[in-house]
Amino acid sequence: MSKTVIYTQRVEFGDCDPAGIVWFPNFFRWIDAASRHFFIECGVPPWHQTAKDLGVIGTPLVDTHAKFMKTASYGDTLQIHTSVAEWRGKSFVQRYRVTRGDDAIMECDEVRIFAGRREDGSIFAWPVPEGIREACS
Amino acid sequence: MSKTVIYTQRVEFGDCDPAGIVWFPNFFRWIDAASRHFFIECGVPPWHQTAKDLGVIGTPLVDTHAKFMKTASYGDTLQIHTSVAEWRGKSFVQRYRVTRGDDAIMECDEVRIFAGRREDGSIFAWPVPEGIREACS
Amino acid sequence: MSKTVIYTQRVEFGDCDPAGIVWFPNFFRWIDAASRHFFIECGVPPWHQTAKDLGVIGTPLVDTHAKFMKTASYGDTLQIHTSVAEWRGKSFVQRYRVTRGDDAIMECDEVRIFAGRREDGSIFAWPVPEGIREACS
Amino acid sequence: MSKTVIYTQRVEFGDCDPAGIVWFPNFFRWIDAASRHFFIECGVPPWHQTAKDLGVIGTPLVDTHAKFMKTASYGDTLQIHTSVAEWRGKSFVQRYRVTRGDDAIMECDEVRIFAGRREDGSIFAWPVPEGIREACS
Repeated sequence: MSKTVIYTQRVEFGDCDPAGIVWFPNFFRWIDAASRHFFIECGVPPWHQTAKDLGVIGTPLVDTHAKFMKTASYGDTLQIHTSVAEWRGKSFVQRYRVTRGDDAIMECDEVRIFAGRREDGSIFAWPVPEGIREACS
Repeated sequence: MSKTVIYTQRVEFGDCDPAGIVWFPNFFRWIDAASRHFFIECGVPPWHQTAKDLGVIGTPLVDTHAKFMKTASYGDTLQIHTSVAEWRGKSFVQRYRVTRGDDAIMECDEVRIFAGRREDGSIFAWPVPEGIREACS
Repeated sequence: MSKTVIYTQRVEFGDCDPAGIVWFPNFFRWIDAASRHFFIECGVPPWHQTAKDLGVIGTPLVDTHAKFMKTASYGDTLQIHTSVAEWRGKSFVQRYRVTRGDDAIMECDEVRIFAGRREDGSIFAWPVPEGIREACS
Repeated sequence: MSKTVIYTQRVEFGDCDPAGIVWFPNFFRWIDAASRHFFIECGVPPWHQTAKDLGVIGTPLVDTHAKFMKTASYGDTLQIHTSVAEWRGKSFVQRYRVTRGDDAIMECDEVRIFAGRREDGSIFAWPVPEGIREACS
């Protein structure tokens, strides 16, 4: 069983659109916060620290696949259950299940990398750092 | 060949994160605008009008799958090439290619529905309206 | 002394700009959430309920004045101290102090109205509802 | 007469809230884009360039005061008329008028600084660079 961390998110009036439901890009805002929160809870330092120690400036997205099952609206409180579903050589799959109590609202699988930055400003994928993998498994 | 509409988006300073690149949820904001823009350019009325005429309040997302190929930053101008890749009975696949000149930045396939609203506030999928399908093909 | 309600807000990576600090429009997102939270905590029903009971669809902004004293960044937790500084006939002044522990980060005074909607879709200001004023003082 | 630059902004579905009108923090997103656009149109290089040449990393906000006159909704196109209303020793007042054709939608006066960054990461205000002032007047 992989480690799972829960991130709690209130839904606000301004997160909703004229149809009265969460405007979907906001789910990705929250999922990105849950991603970072997962690493923090597992004991990984903030990215400005790993930038100094490991050359890792963050975990940008390469691929994402999401399903939306039920709508949510303001006043709701959501739980985002976050884990790493798979470790690969130079990437990993981060998995999210967004629930409101017993309701499944959204599911998402992302492929992310541990990014370094070249002198010219472009980014590249490091091999998954062994210490981070152990901390998060 | 399906109809393709191009939506142009400037990238602004505030769209970028501390790594200096577009924060990915912003791509979904732009894609949602490109989706609506596609229908407008094909001659479909705004959703507040279709709500009265057809009971269609909008085209919420059921599923989305995106790949991120290159980063973008402020000062860039992006082109979002939008089309409908497939019409199904009660849903459709909307396809996006985000480019910066010759660079492929992002690709996305979404499954959306034409939504109606029940008396209790919940939403449901209409069969794809024939008139909209013709206008967009 | 007027009632004060504290709203707690985590600052996330994506809330920050390429300078590494909170991009200022995000402060207004959080202040708007703190505004609604204030009314909820004072026992005022959500706006979709007051729309039915009082014809009040929300509290749109007429005027806002904010000062930014210190920067904030991701990893910070902010406290937003919210109160109503003044009740007027058809508007009120909502006041916010945003702190990070002992640091004053931002201050804001807003003029808001209790809005109704006319048949043509335009909005207007109700006299401040007596029950809401009592609940919030 | 001071130089005025117009920035054009489409209002999108997702910029609007459940009341069907622009959620006000989005005006500040657009105004910030108009601020940067003003400098670019006046010939000032992007901030990542001025960071190298002048030590100026951007123009953070110190104070802002906005009035909201009319609502806007999706489908609208807004014009943001931007100028510098006053140059001070270590700050300047940037002024915005947001219109939709003949309708005045919003007005805003901001105090901004030309920021440098100290070794400890904190920021400070430079005296207004003479070259920038000339380019923008």
